[in-house]
Amino acid sequence: MPRIRYLLHSHIIRRLVLFFMIKFDIITIFPNIFDSYLKESLISRAQKKKLIKINAHNLRRWTTDRHKTVDDRPFGGGLGMVLKIEPIYKSVQFLKLKVKSQKSKVKVILFTPRGEKFTQKIAYKLSKSEQIIFICGRYEGVDERVAKNIADMQLSIGDYDLMGGELPAMVVIESIARLVPGVLGKEDLLKERITKSGGFIEYAQYTRPEVFKVGKKSWRAPKVLLSGDHKKIEEWKKKHMKVIE
Amino acid sequence: MPRIRYLLHSHIIRRLVLFFMIKFDIITIFPNIFDSYLKESLISRAQKKKLIKINAHNLRRWTTDRHKTVDDRPFGGGLGMVLKIEPIYKSVQFLKLKVKSQKSKVKVILFTPRGEKFTQKIAYKLSKSEQIIFICGRYEGVDERVAKNIADMQLSIGDYDLMGGELPAMVVIESIARLVPGVLGKEDLLKERITKSGGFIEYAQYTRPEVFKVGKKSWRAPKVLLSGDHKKIEEWKKKHMKVIE
Repeated sequence: MPRIRYLLHSHIIRRLVLFFMIKFDIITIFPNIFDSYLKESLISRAQKKKLIKINAHNLRRWTTDRHKTVDDRPFGGGLGMVLKIEPIYKSVQFLKLKVKSQKSKVKVILFTPRGEKFTQKIAYKLSKSEQIIFICGRYEGVDERVAKNIADMQLSIGDYDLMGGELPAMVVIESIARLVPGVLGKEDLLKERITKSGGFIEYAQYTRPEVFKVGKKSWRAPKVLLSGDHKKIEEWKKKHMKVIE
Repeated sequence: MPRIRYLLHSHIIRRLVLFFMIKFDIITIFPNIFDSYLKESLISRAQKKKLIKINAHNLRRWTTDRHKTVDDRPFGGGLGMVLKIEPIYKSVQFLKLKVKSQKSKVKVILFTPRGEKFTQKIAYKLSKSEQIIFICGRYEGVDERVAKNIADMQLSIGDYDLMGGELPAMVVIESIARLVPGVLGKEDLLKERITKSGGFIEYAQYTRPEVFKVGKKSWRAPKVLLSGDHKKIEEWKKKHMKVIE
């Protein structure tokens, strides 16, 4: 009986895990940028545990000419080159999971500085997806019809200019992956720091040594934290925390 | 004479280039995360041209115990582990360039979600530095004395939670590197898109084909862009641009 119960139990866990797995597909002209990032740390462990799956695809795979052309000069003039709609359209069509009646579970995201600001709340919402496809524009531009007709969302990770959507894709994947149950080693840590509305809590922390000496200077940890007085410690923590939403 | 003038000229250019070179030092417990990013694209080319220099250093190098301990439990309790001040202090002391009277040219940046929001204006200011040292905290926390006593700036790249400062370091390096003269292939492109106050301009763009057909649907580029009427094109561009500062 215990064995059967165990099997049953592990079966349910596996079903849950499959249910929660998110597939991330990145469309880029620099797929190798992601190699060592994907091999490191919690992201790699999460992939081995089959909690998430990340693939970087070379946009040139969906070109048809001999030179594998992905960009062209802008209509109306201008200095930069613009990523063409055709290969992007084909790549998204090819990669999109065929899920019936669950359209909202598959999201196509285009990174552009003109997009909606990415926040923890959006990360939280996106962590319920089955698949997220990222279109990594290059800084010079992407044919606007991609934003209008192909992408479900346009995101920006902040008010600064980058060379392309590759780093934004890693940022969005990392913040979503953290929220997938089982990815962080200590799940309670996540609970402890998440607010009801999907934001998160950050607070000042100290560890040994109590006094760190640099020349004649002494840098001390606040005494209250070493007092053992739990009420006072909680008060101190509340005073020194920041809620980010 | 022309030859001498050429040599003189190239000498001045070299001096200018040396003057503009920025050294980025990243202190992290995951130095390998950066490998393939640094090998790719414009970042790699900028390093080869000696316009920027990027090194990722393993924080464990500055530990003294057999286990190379970099973190410890937080004073006052809590679930996460906290990065210790001692190895971070030593690493920054070791890496800081000895530049006389130019303190403002060396910046030590700590990434924390509680930091100042990174923007294009900050990128622009930082692009005048000689050296920038990034301390990559891990999401569980960094001894607060690092923020108070070691870092010159605390930065956050956005209101979302990440696993550590590694992706923020790449984001900040990429946005600063773009602003270093010579890093982007077409320098005029940079000029065309930078505002007087250090912000940047983004606008909608289109390229061939003029009409992209998907089944029965036709997605068209705006006709005005193909009109050849420069005045109207400029008007259209102004209407469809966004200034980000």
